[in-house]
Amino acid sequence: MSDECHRMRIVSVIGSATCSEEECAYAEAVGEGLASHGIAVVCGGRSGVMEAVCRGAQLRGGLTIGLLPGLDGEAANPYVRLALPTGIGQARNALVVAAGEAVIAIGGGYGTLSEIGFALKLGKPLIALGTWKAARSDGSAAGMIEVKTPGEAISACLKILGLAHL
Amino acid sequence: MSDECHRMRIVSVIGSATCSEEECAYAEAVGEGLASHGIAVVCGGRSGVMEAVCRGAQLRGGLTIGLLPGLDGEAANPYVRLALPTGIGQARNALVVAAGEAVIAIGGGYGTLSEIGFALKLGKPLIALGTWKAARSDGSAAGMIEVKTPGEAISACLKILGLAHL
Amino acid sequence: MSDECHRMRIVSVIGSATCSEEECAYAEAVGEGLASHGIAVVCGGRSGVMEAVCRGAQLRGGLTIGLLPGLDGEAANPYVRLALPTGIGQARNALVVAAGEAVIAIGGGYGTLSEIGFALKLGKPLIALGTWKAARSDGSAAGMIEVKTPGEAISACLKILGLAHL
Amino acid sequence: MSDECHRMRIVSVIGSATCSEEECAYAEAVGEGLASHGIAVVCGGRSGVMEAVCRGAQLRGGLTIGLLPGLDGEAANPYVRLALPTGIGQARNALVVAAGEAVIAIGGGYGTLSEIGFALKLGKPLIALGTWKAARSDGSAAGMIEVKTPGEAISACLKILGLAHL
Repeated sequence: MSDECHRMRIVSVIGSATCSEEECAYAEAVGEGLASHGIAVVCGGRSGVMEAVCRGAQLRGGLTIGLLPGLDGEAANPYVRLALPTGIGQARNALVVAAGEAVIAIGGGYGTLSEIGFALKLGKPLIALGTWKAARSDGSAAGMIEVKTPGEAISACLKILGLAHL
Repeated sequence: MSDECHRMRIVSVIGSATCSEEECAYAEAVGEGLASHGIAVVCGGRSGVMEAVCRGAQLRGGLTIGLLPGLDGEAANPYVRLALPTGIGQARNALVVAAGEAVIAIGGGYGTLSEIGFALKLGKPLIALGTWKAARSDGSAAGMIEVKTPGEAISACLKILGLAHL
Repeated sequence: MSDECHRMRIVSVIGSATCSEEECAYAEAVGEGLASHGIAVVCGGRSGVMEAVCRGAQLRGGLTIGLLPGLDGEAANPYVRLALPTGIGQARNALVVAAGEAVIAIGGGYGTLSEIGFALKLGKPLIALGTWKAARSDGSAAGMIEVKTPGEAISACLKILGLAHL
Repeated sequence: MSDECHRMRIVSVIGSATCSEEECAYAEAVGEGLASHGIAVVCGGRSGVMEAVCRGAQLRGGLTIGLLPGLDGEAANPYVRLALPTGIGQARNALVVAAGEAVIAIGGGYGTLSEIGFALKLGKPLIALGTWKAARSDGSAAGMIEVKTPGEAISACLKILGLAHL
């Protein structure tokens, strides 16, 4: 074994605690795609998009991390392998996006919108799969990478992480 | 003197650290309007919209509070009367909106977008004065109170705070 | 009026939500002392030492700021003039000490101990009035300024803030 | 594979960014002990005790998680497998202890003292291996489980986690 461990690559997946069937299917496929490339998934650890992406990742043996708003690790969805309670409430959204090298947004509510703002503020590449669109008062749009399918989301993500050849 | 102090009413004003002349004038007028009704202003404490709203509030003898991202109170703009360093970086955006009873957004960059998401997530009334528009993938818009002028922003704000008769 | 406002001086007062009669009397006297020198008090906004210091400050017309763990401003004690909900739970302890130029600790429980650690980590002058003593495994003590009375606490504080001539 | 993943057990290890040779050896042995029982280690991700515990855990193939104060994952020590930047500075100390089911403190500076206070405030079992001692003004001591060796620390930890039979 080498003296130093290989750092895992980590991608944040954001989306709300309730989601449509299509959003759920998208999230699960994204989780499968990330895990099959050895990428760990970090999310808010709850239901909806967060649960679906973890379920998908687990199907491929991936590592799933949930940054929970409360102090109780048991509040994590059953597909979270590392449940990390934070106790800082919705402010944990800032940490969910800070933790990943890139961010994939799927559907989403107002919490997701806050995460989109944070991701862009921090300069994280943001891949948008059927999520919020935001435009300034002059009509110019927020700088997201818009994709149509989970496959495109994974391709964009691999390119960003320099893993496109895999 | 009564045994208990009168709690001050507090409104959050959000917007970016650089702003156009119009946004700057809007922010200053909003600051004047809030202060003239005895409402304290909380903001991120830096330049741009944050500085303009504090300058306006001070012109009317208002109280201005800056929640700073760093640990140095000296980084506050000169019109902040209470400079509160937080040391939590951009995550302080969550606190800026949590601190007010209502939120007024003027112009703004990605940090402001994160604050808009947080405000809506926390159920804070959000008054939009020439700021981001956000729409879900089904085209439905985020629930903001859109206004055209600082005067309309103050009127909407006073109604929300139950001070419309003043 | 000058173009720029005078920044208020701010001191953090820490201590637990329940306190003995003596601690309560000490906290009230400290609040009176700070307010009579025009210094704003920041604290955790709840009961016990936090309430007593705010009550004392209010008796002298001082400004009191409560950084609350939850999202509800109504949870503040009645002597808090500026109730700032944070929603970040006990992590707000880090912000209570970051907000002041100096920190006065009175009595206190485990939350106070966390604040003492933070204050020292951030290099804030820490005035200890009947609070925790902490020693490293080699027996060396944490670097606090130990005082015996509220009057000594105020004197030490004024010296630190460069206001000793007042 | 079962439908649900097995949640990993997580223990927080705290201590400062510089440490003596003995503290370093203790931390490495604690890391080895936790990893050999399949327990993930969460820490602040930096040097000193944090690096030593991660190095020990890695020697036994364990999972190491670093909650970093800044926004740059590269600031983690080389034995951190999951580097999670938070961007919230020293306030991340609250999260380090919130993330584990139990906390082991080794040596330590003022940041460690803040973590000890937080751990006790949150009701986390706290195992003390040559770290701070803290006493209230009445002389009563903070409620830590004092141990003399890394082996005793691991035994106490396994008992707390209900893994003592392993």
